[in-house]
Amino acid sequence: MDLRELIDLLPAGTVLTDPDVLAGYRQDWAKDPAAGTPLAVVRATGTADVCTTLRWADEHRVPVVPRGAGSGLSGGATAVDGGIVLSTERMRGIAIDPVTRTAVVGPGLLNAEVKRAVAEHGLWYPPDPSSFEMCSIGGNAATNAGGLCCVKYGVTTDYVLGMEVVLADGTAVRLGGPRLKDSAGLSLTKMFVGSEGTLGVITELTLRLLPAQPAQSTVVASFATLTAATEAILAVTGALRPAMLEFMDSVAINAVEDELRMGLDRDAAALLVARSDAPGDHAAQEARIMLEACRAAGATEAFHTADPEEGEAFTAARRYAIPAVERLGPLLLEDVGVPLPRLGDLVTGIAEIAERNDVTVSVIAHAGDGNTHPLIVHDPADPDETERAHRAFGEIMALAIALGGTITGEHGVGRLKKAWLPDQLGPEVMDLTRRIKTALDPHGILNPGAVL
Amino acid sequence: MDLRELIDLLPAGTVLTDPDVLAGYRQDWAKDPAAGTPLAVVRATGTADVCTTLRWADEHRVPVVPRGAGSGLSGGATAVDGGIVLSTERMRGIAIDPVTRTAVVGPGLLNAEVKRAVAEHGLWYPPDPSSFEMCSIGGNAATNAGGLCCVKYGVTTDYVLGMEVVLADGTAVRLGGPRLKDSAGLSLTKMFVGSEGTLGVITELTLRLLPAQPAQSTVVASFATLTAATEAILAVTGALRPAMLEFMDSVAINAVEDELRMGLDRDAAALLVARSDAPGDHAAQEARIMLEACRAAGATEAFHTADPEEGEAFTAARRYAIPAVERLGPLLLEDVGVPLPRLGDLVTGIAEIAERNDVTVSVIAHAGDGNTHPLIVHDPADPDETERAHRAFGEIMALAIALGGTITGEHGVGRLKKAWLPDQLGPEVMDLTRRIKTALDPHGILNPGAVL
Ligand SMILES: Cc1cc2nc3c(=O)[nH]c(=O)nc-3n(C[C@H](O)[C@H](O)[C@H](O)COP(=O)(O)OP(=O)(O)OC[C@H]3O[C@@H](n4cnc5c(N)ncnc54)[C@H](O)[C@@H]3O)c2cc1C
Ligand SMILES: Cc1cc2nc3c(=O)[nH]c(=O)nc-3n(C[C@H](O)[C@H](O)[C@H](O)COP(=O)(O)OP(=O)(O)OC[C@H]3O[C@@H](n4cnc5c(N)ncnc54)[C@H](O)[C@@H]3O)c2cc1C
Repeated sequence: MDLRELIDLLPAGTVLTDPDVLAGYRQDWAKDPAAGTPLAVVRATGTADVCTTLRWADEHRVPVVPRGAGSGLSGGATAVDGGIVLSTERMRGIAIDPVTRTAVVGPGLLNAEVKRAVAEHGLWYPPDPSSFEMCSIGGNAATNAGGLCCVKYGVTTDYVLGMEVVLADGTAVRLGGPRLKDSAGLSLTKMFVGSEGTLGVITELTLRLLPAQPAQSTVVASFATLTAATEAILAVTGALRPAMLEFMDSVAINAVEDELRMGLDRDAAALLVARSDAPGDHAAQEARIMLEACRAAGATEAFHTADPEEGEAFTAARRYAIPAVERLGPLLLEDVGVPLPRLGDLVTGIAEIAERNDVTVSVIAHAGDGNTHPLIVHDPADPDETERAHRAFGEIMALAIALGGTITGEHGVGRLKKAWLPDQLGPEVMDLTRRIKTALDPHGILNPGAVL
Repeated sequence: MDLRELIDLLPAGTVLTDPDVLAGYRQDWAKDPAAGTPLAVVRATGTADVCTTLRWADEHRVPVVPRGAGSGLSGGATAVDGGIVLSTERMRGIAIDPVTRTAVVGPGLLNAEVKRAVAEHGLWYPPDPSSFEMCSIGGNAATNAGGLCCVKYGVTTDYVLGMEVVLADGTAVRLGGPRLKDSAGLSLTKMFVGSEGTLGVITELTLRLLPAQPAQSTVVASFATLTAATEAILAVTGALRPAMLEFMDSVAINAVEDELRMGLDRDAAALLVARSDAPGDHAAQEARIMLEACRAAGATEAFHTADPEEGEAFTAARRYAIPAVERLGPLLLEDVGVPLPRLGDLVTGIAEIAERNDVTVSVIAHAGDGNTHPLIVHDPADPDETERAHRAFGEIMALAIALGGTITGEHGVGRLKKAWLPDQLGPEVMDLTRRIKTALDPHGILNPGAVL
């Protein structure tokens, strides 16, 4: 493929072809060994560059993989041989309207950068994936990212009021806007959220913000059995709506403790970290209710703290779980979710799958919304173990589906989970999805191989 | 069109053709005089009947107008000559899961019935259109209905986790489900919410619920000028997130007072009713902050009450505004919204449009989210006044668009506003909308003439 036309159409320095540079854009955090090598990386400086690139690619039938910060865990941003990686990392504008409580942001800003910028106006952008310091807000919208506060505050889609998105043929469209309510036409904004780069490239987002989050009280509880921990989860969510309710199993506890040495209970089968941000005294009151619920479910140790730093330290420990477990070996990352009453069945079922396949599976979870991350540790150099790990990967998704759940609560389908998507959605919904994909991207240039 | 085949395919008594019965299904609350007369009304008893009806209609190219309770205000459920009105009124199942805090409901249940049923489990379904006693939950999802609590609790889409929907060709699909987070595939659930019966017929909804709402404190404030009132609105939303923030102008105040005789200030230019549901003492505290904001903006009278009955009386007065103003004469109902900082410009601009066109326009508003309902009173028997009313109707929408707003915040486009939709969305978004409509309903049988 001759790139000269594209290079000429774009600002100088926008199209990168140096093999060393390309290597850094081949994979996302899922580190898919099957990743291709792109023809070029386009680092768009603005919407016009995205339009130009897509118009060119659509005309020449060149695949385009949109890429935010590459922190994705399902291979959604894995490069395709002979394709373009279209990076939004240079699109970093931000404008905040404190009266409407909205922000208009470029997709390339990191989630943490958005949080910090709005905090200067006393405002809060709630969605908080654990990767918030290294994922882009555009990637968050493209995956409908979740996080720790979702159990009370919802996911990314709940905060996207509008966007500019460039369609496969290079047309830029504006959807929604800084209006808290808007019923004019189809809810297209919401359809593009979570579309994983298969329907268009998000070039701008209008985000809804909240007033700064009140101070939080934190509860930490250890359990001797997984069952006691999942019972505590149901007891907590049954009593109130926590601002956070996170779970780590013993593998994760020990992996985190190995790194952070903060005195986590290494003998526990599971640890829960829960928070309340109810106003004033009510946070402490809710913390006491959660503490009681944990104790009643049989917590071996449980305490609460109103100290923000201490609370944040336990939250950070939970956030650190994926990188910590990764030190034990390369991971196959799961993201299965189930309706809350089935969480116990899921967690014990995963333990059985791990045992049967003789692999280590560490389970961490955004427990309050039934979303777990079983982390399957394996050595890719050992073909037998790799096979067992992949078998467990499939069995865990099948289990989640059997329990009325989902193969992905927040990371998206990407390339690594697409084989299981039809099992969850069924042929009619797959067909419906394909009809929309074809209507919007008739030549199939946008992120081919992802989701569908 | 020969209906015998359809009658034979459906349970006895499902297909109604008596002209007197049909007359009752010709119009929705917008009372469009241009409404057609349907061939038949199908009162489906369940999903299978909906599938059968759509399969038959798609094959014979017969238009189908889905209908909930017919309380719509934009002619979305207006019957089409020679078409079928497909009513969901008999689909009234409900199953509540208090642990996951979800409910699976039939589309024909009234919003108020859903609220009452979940309240028995100590749960709350927030969306509360003023019409909650007479609109269906399926209609709410199809219009993405708003209401009074949206300013804090969001709109219908924020509470729809999943649905069963029957596509134009009669295929039933299940989307989403009782999972608080689900990123598997496109966000199709959200696309069907607000699609006004143009993409499919919703036959079941999975709703997210919240714990019962805490007791509320209520603030009532009168203002001598519209500007003072809109300033108070910005001051209130700038200080906190009220659970409700509603506005009535002097026409509405007097119309409501004529009916309810509750001592509203007939001399006021505007009345605000605001509520806080912060836990415990915090509700009274927030009420005091709102009271101060109103006084600082120049309220002529302002008080707060923690008495639930008194608070509910003022809320009911505001809810009663549309029927009350309707006593002055038939209405053209607007639903325009703007970003909050432009609310003052919108309200004063509407007063100018009313004056210029010599028509009475009463403005009521879900003020906290910038969504207003200018009610244009006119006498359809007077052709000149009717023309001026329709001119004002168009000018108000043009003004909203010019202020960066929307032609409909919550009622939907239906048939009455579709001429203005391209002005708001632009040709590219209209084209995108048409591509999706064609992909899902190639023969255009679903609610033809609505939205597009
Ligand atoms: C340690 C760790 C912890 C994590 N924790 C969480 C968590 O708690 N919750 C959670 O939800 N995720 C989590 N993630 C996953 C990841 O951070 C999220 O999926 C994030 O939203 C991806 O953003 P990104 O900018 O890195 O996107 P990328 O990885 O670059 O891309 C992700 C997908 O979005 C598409 N895309 C990116 N930008 C655009 C755009 N502008 N327009 C269209 N499509 C685009 C890509 O094509 C791809 O399909 C975690 C990841 C790591 C490594
Ligand atoms: C006095 C009054 C006050 C109101 N206040 C509010 C308010 O505060 N907020 C607000 O949002 N609305 C308000 N409305 C408008 C109206 O009640 C809402 O739009 C409501 O959601 C309509 O529900 P319905 O069941 O009556 O739908 P219908 O009027 O029967 O239909 C509305 C639209 O939805 C489609 N539809 C209905 N059911 C289905 C289904 N199962 N599947 C697919 N499509 C379907 C129809 O084709 C039509 O396009 C008010 C109306 C009145 C009369």
